[in-house]
Amino acid sequence: MLKLYYAAGTCALAPHIALEEAGAVYDTARLDFRQNDQRKPDYLAINPKGRVPSLATAQGVLTETPAILAYIAQRFPAAHLAPVDDAFAFAQVQAFNSYLSSTLHVAHAHRLRGHRWADDPAAIQAMKQKVPESVGEAFKLLEATMFKGPWVMGERYTVCDPYLFTVARWMEGDGVDPAQFPALLAHRQRMAERPAVVRALAQQAAE
Amino acid sequence: MLKLYYAAGTCALAPHIALEEAGAVYDTARLDFRQNDQRKPDYLAINPKGRVPSLATAQGVLTETPAILAYIAQRFPAAHLAPVDDAFAFAQVQAFNSYLSSTLHVAHAHRLRGHRWADDPAAIQAMKQKVPESVGEAFKLLEATMFKGPWVMGERYTVCDPYLFTVARWMEGDGVDPAQFPALLAHRQRMAERPAVVRALAQQAAE
Repeated sequence: MLKLYYAAGTCALAPHIALEEAGAVYDTARLDFRQNDQRKPDYLAINPKGRVPSLATAQGVLTETPAILAYIAQRFPAAHLAPVDDAFAFAQVQAFNSYLSSTLHVAHAHRLRGHRWADDPAAIQAMKQKVPESVGEAFKLLEATMFKGPWVMGERYTVCDPYLFTVARWMEGDGVDPAQFPALLAHRQRMAERPAVVRALAQQAAE
Repeated sequence: MLKLYYAAGTCALAPHIALEEAGAVYDTARLDFRQNDQRKPDYLAINPKGRVPSLATAQGVLTETPAILAYIAQRFPAAHLAPVDDAFAFAQVQAFNSYLSSTLHVAHAHRLRGHRWADDPAAIQAMKQKVPESVGEAFKLLEATMFKGPWVMGERYTVCDPYLFTVARWMEGDGVDPAQFPALLAHRQRMAERPAVVRALAQQAAE
């Protein structure tokens, strides 16, 4: 059985929603970042990176949100969560998710994880200060050039949608005003009404 | 016809090598970062992110190295550059490339692109100082837990190999001693001998 390792408030919500959308049978394991669960030996044996999400499968453990999302789409083809047989369309899905991972999420991480990239407390503070601007710029690009609507890729819902929803929930905490991004805000509201999203959020709230 | 937009010394070398491995017919367009070509209107019309690589195809432009690599693998199946029909194995390829993009490349970018995440010159200097450690840690994880050998995924060469080769060439510039990583260093040497790699590097040197 699939098992998703997640922590509350993290990008692991994206594969959690995708598993719900796929109708997958899966288990979850919740990590508490305040207890530093992700750096404990038990978890490092599962994912040596000490990060979430991880998805344990019968063939081994997968990491990295874009890869896990593509796996769920390919593993559950009946759910049509990505155009896996169309090289160009599938690459567009991957490109979108890769941008969220390597640009938007990275900008966001400079708010609370600046110690990854500098030791000086003043430098860590300087990084925190720029987050509203750097994260805001990423959302601006999404709104202006990448988001098609009503779903990320247009008429078809894909694994880009739960990922965008997940990072769009961070806007207020990052000091970014969602009102600047009407299309993304409408998407966030549309997503919040999907039964799969309601179920994933309820499960994370209950655990 | 495919057209690869690249700049010298960047991660665009990875898809360039992959196109050579695939036997693709393609064109290249070289951007000069010293002239800030990537921020000029002509290029922003192609890729609004102002980054490389971009791959123009008959269906539109693709961005993000992991997505472009997966596209080349899927578009040229005869070259067997990724196990595209095996959801788990393909996800392992994507996870590896996603790690290079969102962790290793990001750590590396703090050496010359710190202005993305802070304005204070002292903070930018503090980021630069940590690069040998943060990039070194990423290579340590690759060597210890992710690289299988002789190729990244084991016996089969995949699109992970040109990407690893590309970022491994940055070690010395990032202040990371390659001698700490004998498996990665042997891989870098093995890659440098492949005809596709020789051709891509020669083309970039000649343009």
